[in-house]
Amino acid sequence: MTLFTLADTLGIITFAYAGLLVGTEKKLDLLGLVILSSLTAMGGGILRDVMAGRIPYSLVDPLPAATVLGTIAVVLLFRLQRFASAENMRVFIISDAVGLSAFSISGAIVGIQAGLSGFGVVVLGFVTAVGGGIIRDVLINRVPLLLRRDFYGTVAILVAAAVWALEVLGLRNELSMTVLFALGVAVRLTAYFKGWKLPSFGV
Amino acid sequence: MTLFTLADTLGIITFAYAGLLVGTEKKLDLLGLVILSSLTAMGGGILRDVMAGRIPYSLVDPLPAATVLGTIAVVLLFRLQRFASAENMRVFIISDAVGLSAFSISGAIVGIQAGLSGFGVVVLGFVTAVGGGIIRDVLINRVPLLLRRDFYGTVAILVAAAVWALEVLGLRNELSMTVLFALGVAVRLTAYFKGWKLPSFGV
Amino acid sequence: MTLFTLADTLGIITFAYAGLLVGTEKKLDLLGLVILSSLTAMGGGILRDVMAGRIPYSLVDPLPAATVLGTIAVVLLFRLQRFASAENMRVFIISDAVGLSAFSISGAIVGIQAGLSGFGVVVLGFVTAVGGGIIRDVLINRVPLLLRRDFYGTVAILVAAAVWALEVLGLRNELSMTVLFALGVAVRLTAYFKGWKLPSFGV
Repeated sequence: MTLFTLADTLGIITFAYAGLLVGTEKKLDLLGLVILSSLTAMGGGILRDVMAGRIPYSLVDPLPAATVLGTIAVVLLFRLQRFASAENMRVFIISDAVGLSAFSISGAIVGIQAGLSGFGVVVLGFVTAVGGGIIRDVLINRVPLLLRRDFYGTVAILVAAAVWALEVLGLRNELSMTVLFALGVAVRLTAYFKGWKLPSFGV
Repeated sequence: MTLFTLADTLGIITFAYAGLLVGTEKKLDLLGLVILSSLTAMGGGILRDVMAGRIPYSLVDPLPAATVLGTIAVVLLFRLQRFASAENMRVFIISDAVGLSAFSISGAIVGIQAGLSGFGVVVLGFVTAVGGGIIRDVLINRVPLLLRRDFYGTVAILVAAAVWALEVLGLRNELSMTVLFALGVAVRLTAYFKGWKLPSFGV
Repeated sequence: MTLFTLADTLGIITFAYAGLLVGTEKKLDLLGLVILSSLTAMGGGILRDVMAGRIPYSLVDPLPAATVLGTIAVVLLFRLQRFASAENMRVFIISDAVGLSAFSISGAIVGIQAGLSGFGVVVLGFVTAVGGGIIRDVLINRVPLLLRRDFYGTVAILVAAAVWALEVLGLRNELSMTVLFALGVAVRLTAYFKGWKLPSFGV
């Protein structure tokens, strides 16, 4: 298992946990929890594959599903949803940044393989990283976190654009992707802890 | 026309009627009613086909569309939306259970044909059965009924999982699917009239 | 560049501007604006292509993306979002009608090429024209404008149905499409300025 597969799996676990937390907060039943958790973890990848003209990977390979269902089982058995408190959020934010960076890279690579334009590659990286959270937020009827002021989706866009630039420059390889992955995590964490914001343009 | 096609058509009619009722309650105009009704009846199947890498069946074959538009015409001409009262809901609940069971089976079979994993097969059965209702609820801006406490989506999951189990055991045939279909209807109706619930996991 | 390509590009610009206006009104940050604007302009075409089994055109060809990003840049640089006032809305309504008519035709043609039924062709024209606006409205958590009383989506349906009828009659050509496009714009503007409504069917 490469560092990258490891990061991808860590991303699935964190995103599944994030979906579960939102579901327990909304007091959903077991099925609702499984849906919200699965969608958050796998929804972005499903959108990515559908847009790239492929049958969704997570519906063919049993590993992502097993990871998500295992995460749900462990969290509910040990009642880990209680630990979503302030001090533990630090661990959560870090793993979430890992998932964000890993998913942006995997999405961008699928986009390159499907022959998309630079814009298309960035869209696919972005959709993979944030699509699951958007679907989850739409389902529980709240404006996606992403659209509110933050520096989260921007990281996905920057990482995916970097994958594309490295591809164009002929520099996309295992090493450069690993470095980019680490950089993506670092940028997201810096943005989070420093409270970076994008400019807004009210009337 | 096999029993199964009959059940599928009955499902389309009931789901179209369900979408129409939500639309008249929201006082939508004629176009809004047609959209909500069509999406409820065909949205799940469209999602299923897109996820299985196929052009949506209901956009190619004129029968499902004719069934939905015919249902809308009959309901509006005879003002059947008035009859959504308590005593008639029993008929509605029964037909809805028929649609739920038929759609879960057809979705699972498409999943098997597309070469999906067991998880993927269950997702496709589930999406086919409840996807239309979810899209409808998201459009009219309410948290999908499905995510609130009930024993509805669970039936879709159980039925689709049974299709997959029968496939693995080499027992998937016309007879076993018909028996499973009847069982699915029975479980849904029992769940409804007994008020079954799944456990929930609040903090 | 044919008249039709011109209309399509004008449609992308107007829809991008419409998405931007909604975003600045909601006080979104720069990323939120780009997302809302791109989705409004390109979301319908992406849905169309996915439903027709094609990789989304706007993710492969760089022109639509450049048009959208250029529109966003010009609007924000010159602060054109301030000009969304009553007297300028007339220009906006006219360009929007141009986009609506052009997108309905392009969607219907993709549907014909994909071998869909008449119903499928109409659905694809409709989805292309109004899908972007629906996704935008769902994201910002409001009931899609389309579902509220108006004569907007109906124009998309009429135009797409006319494309299909002309195809069946063997009369689909550059000339008939241009005439239909102009007719679609005229019907939409007449409907808007005369306040046409569809009947509604409350209980």
